[in-house]
Amino acid sequence: MTDPTATERRRSSIGARRSPETEAAILSAARELLAERGYAGFSIDEVARRAGAGKPTIYRWWPTKADLFIDVYSAEKAAHMALPETGALWSDILAYTRALWGFWRETPSGRTFRALLAEAQTTDAALAALREKFLPERLKDLRHMFERAAARGEIAPEAVDDLLTLYIGFNWVHLLTDRLADDPPAIARVARLIAGTPAGEGR
Amino acid sequence: MTDPTATERRRSSIGARRSPETEAAILSAARELLAERGYAGFSIDEVARRAGAGKPTIYRWWPTKADLFIDVYSAEKAAHMALPETGALWSDILAYTRALWGFWRETPSGRTFRALLAEAQTTDAALAALREKFLPERLKDLRHMFERAAARGEIAPEAVDDLLTLYIGFNWVHLLTDRLADDPPAIARVARLIAGTPAGEGR
Repeated sequence: MTDPTATERRRSSIGARRSPETEAAILSAARELLAERGYAGFSIDEVARRAGAGKPTIYRWWPTKADLFIDVYSAEKAAHMALPETGALWSDILAYTRALWGFWRETPSGRTFRALLAEAQTTDAALAALREKFLPERLKDLRHMFERAAARGEIAPEAVDDLLTLYIGFNWVHLLTDRLADDPPAIARVARLIAGTPAGEGR
Repeated sequence: MTDPTATERRRSSIGARRSPETEAAILSAARELLAERGYAGFSIDEVARRAGAGKPTIYRWWPTKADLFIDVYSAEKAAHMALPETGALWSDILAYTRALWGFWRETPSGRTFRALLAEAQTTDAALAALREKFLPERLKDLRHMFERAAARGEIAPEAVDDLLTLYIGFNWVHLLTDRLADDPPAIARVARLIAGTPAGEGR
C-alpha cells in the first residue's frame, strides 16, 4: 500500500472511489425510503437529502435507480436467505419458495424487488442492470440447487436452464400480483410440477 | 328507450357516460404515446393534450394509468391474437407463445404490457386493476386451451391452474427481461416441459 504507483492511481481516481460510510448511508436511506413509500414514492432527491449526500455522488456510484435497488436488495437477501438441502428437488423448491415469499412479505425486500422489476421497464440502462448484473448473480445459488438435482438423476441436465426460468417466472408472477400467502400444499403442487415428481412420490 | 325514468337516469349520469369519439381519441393518444415514449415517458397530461380531452374525463373513465393500459392492450390483443388448435397442448403452447412474443416484439403492445406490469407496482388501485380486471379476462382463452388438453387426457384437470401460472410466468420473465427472440426449438422445449410431453413424443 506504500507503493507510490498505487498511491498515485488511488489519488487520480479519488472521485470514483467510494467512501464506505457514505455508501452505507445512501443504501440505508434508499432501503428506508423504499420501505416507507415503495416504488411510486421513491426519488434520488429524497435519498440524497436523507443520506446527506450529493446527487452527483449517487449517480456516479449507481447510474440508474435499478442499480441502487439491486444493491439494497442483494445485501438483504444475502443476510436472510440460505439454500435448503432437503435431498430432493421438489422439497428444496418448496422450502426455498416458502422462505423467499416470507422474505418478500415480511421485510421491505418485496417492495424493493417489485421496484427493481418496474424500474427495469423504464430505460435500456435499467433493463441492462437487471439482466446483466442482477440476474446472473442472483441465479447462481438456484442454479446450484437444480444442478445438484440433475447430478442425483432427478432432472435432465439439459433441462436445468428451462426449469430455472419456469421457477423464476412462478415467483415473479406471485410477487408482481402480490400473492405471497404461505400455502404449503399449493406451493408443493407447483414444486412437484417443476421437479417432475408426481404427488405421492419422493415423500 | 322512451321510458322517462330511463331517460332521467341517463341525464342524471351524463357526466359518467362515455362519448365513443372521445373515448377512441383518448385510447388512440395513449397507444401512440406508449409506442413513442414507453412507460417512462407516459403522462396523462400528454394524453389529454393529444386527445383534446380534459384530464378529469380521463380520470373518471380510467381511475388509474393501469386501467388505461389495460384497455389499450386488450383492444390490440383481441385484434391480433387467436387461439391455436393444433391437437396437442405442447404444440398449442409453442404456436401461442411464438404468436404472443411476435405480437409483443412487433407492435407497441409489448411496451404497453410492460407499462401495465410496472404501473401495477405503484399503487394498490393499479395492482387491483391488473389482478381483478385484466388477468381473469385475459386468462379465459388460455384456460380454455389447457382445459381442452385436460379433456383429451394430456394433463390432470387439477393441474390446469398451476400449469397456467407456470406458463404465464414463463412469458412474463421473457417480456420483462426483453428476451422475445423467435427461437422455436427453445420455446418447444419449455412447451414440452409445461405440457409434460417428453421430446420425441407427440410429434
